[in-house]
Amino acid sequence: MTRTRFQHELDRLKQNLLAMAGMSEQAVQRAMEAYGSRDSKVCRLVLTGEASINLAEREIDDLALELLAMQQPMAVDLRFILAGIKINADLERVGDQAVNIAERVMRLITLPPADLPLDLPRTGFLASLMVRQAIEAFVRGDAALARAVLQMDDQVDAMNDEAYVTMSRVMRDTPQYAEQALNLLLISRNLERVADHATNIAEDVIFWVQGANVRHGVQVSTGGS
Amino acid sequence: MTRTRFQHELDRLKQNLLAMAGMSEQAVQRAMEAYGSRDSKVCRLVLTGEASINLAEREIDDLALELLAMQQPMAVDLRFILAGIKINADLERVGDQAVNIAERVMRLITLPPADLPLDLPRTGFLASLMVRQAIEAFVRGDAALARAVLQMDDQVDAMNDEAYVTMSRVMRDTPQYAEQALNLLLISRNLERVADHATNIAEDVIFWVQGANVRHGVQVSTGGS
Repeated sequence: MTRTRFQHELDRLKQNLLAMAGMSEQAVQRAMEAYGSRDSKVCRLVLTGEASINLAEREIDDLALELLAMQQPMAVDLRFILAGIKINADLERVGDQAVNIAERVMRLITLPPADLPLDLPRTGFLASLMVRQAIEAFVRGDAALARAVLQMDDQVDAMNDEAYVTMSRVMRDTPQYAEQALNLLLISRNLERVADHATNIAEDVIFWVQGANVRHGVQVSTGGS
Repeated sequence: MTRTRFQHELDRLKQNLLAMAGMSEQAVQRAMEAYGSRDSKVCRLVLTGEASINLAEREIDDLALELLAMQQPMAVDLRFILAGIKINADLERVGDQAVNIAERVMRLITLPPADLPLDLPRTGFLASLMVRQAIEAFVRGDAALARAVLQMDDQVDAMNDEAYVTMSRVMRDTPQYAEQALNLLLISRNLERVADHATNIAEDVIFWVQGANVRHGVQVSTGGS
């Protein structure tokens, strides 16, 4: 493989990851749309869409393996490919979370509607945005944008902690809505995991771009606060 | 790097992953021990132990990167290293789940004890066993053992589904125990995720050993049914 061909294939890896991210993010958005509209047809779209995401994951892994096998990559390319392999796994799991949410919505639809004090669409919006920005950071090689994703994760965590407090109170005080409250809380936790995967992706981007591992609280200078 | 040195380093990668697996599995067992004894000291052991697991993860990633950079690996070694990178990420997340369980137990300890009809230690035992067997399958290169792990996952999923039914009934019928039931259900889901990670590891072992990707339902002949 020539160097030009290698660069071309690296670019293909990036494009495939971008497409994969689009599918995963869309799955989360659809699951939340189904939550809003109580629409089991949209839930089933998410469930059947999982196969395409899984297939895309496998193709990306094969491409990465091929890239590693065909040419001894330079250090910077190696880090890029490794980041791609990890991001791929995280995107697939974002898709899994969308499936979990769709399953919870399927259950909710069978229960009487209950107007409970929890703004899940807001959490869903933030979690989706984190995935999109993490992938944008990857495509652009933008570590500053990746760091912004890390900060958003704290917000989603706080929203999820609040969901625990609010929904366990509903369960205790209005047991007739206990199962509805439980499903809302489980969706909140699924969204929190989507945000965790976005955070992992952002950390992998920073690892690749800066050659610094910011996972687990190791500081990277931002030039600012 | 000579070929012998390279093999030696590959072996070191395997040994490090084995040690990492031991730490992650121990974290889950400790969290479940804390659940049984309602002991916040044991919970804190799990919480403080997370840093060591994160450090071990980073060292393994660095070692894998070094192996890929120093010598153009043969296809079989490349698959092994890639499996190692993915297994590493899954083991770290097993540790995360142990932390989540310990946090749930910390909350449970603050609530009045409730004797609820859910055998979480049994689920915990199975999930831990799956992690241990998946790693044994990796160390021995044993695809048959890895496939046994995949089957155990169905059992854990069934136990987790049952936990949903039982605990949502408790919430509805005895709302004074709603929060205890909720925390038990959340622990059940954490254990189900531990089992999922063990499943991912088993799939990576099969990918490496057989050169076949059994992820997402692609069949691998077992010579049996």
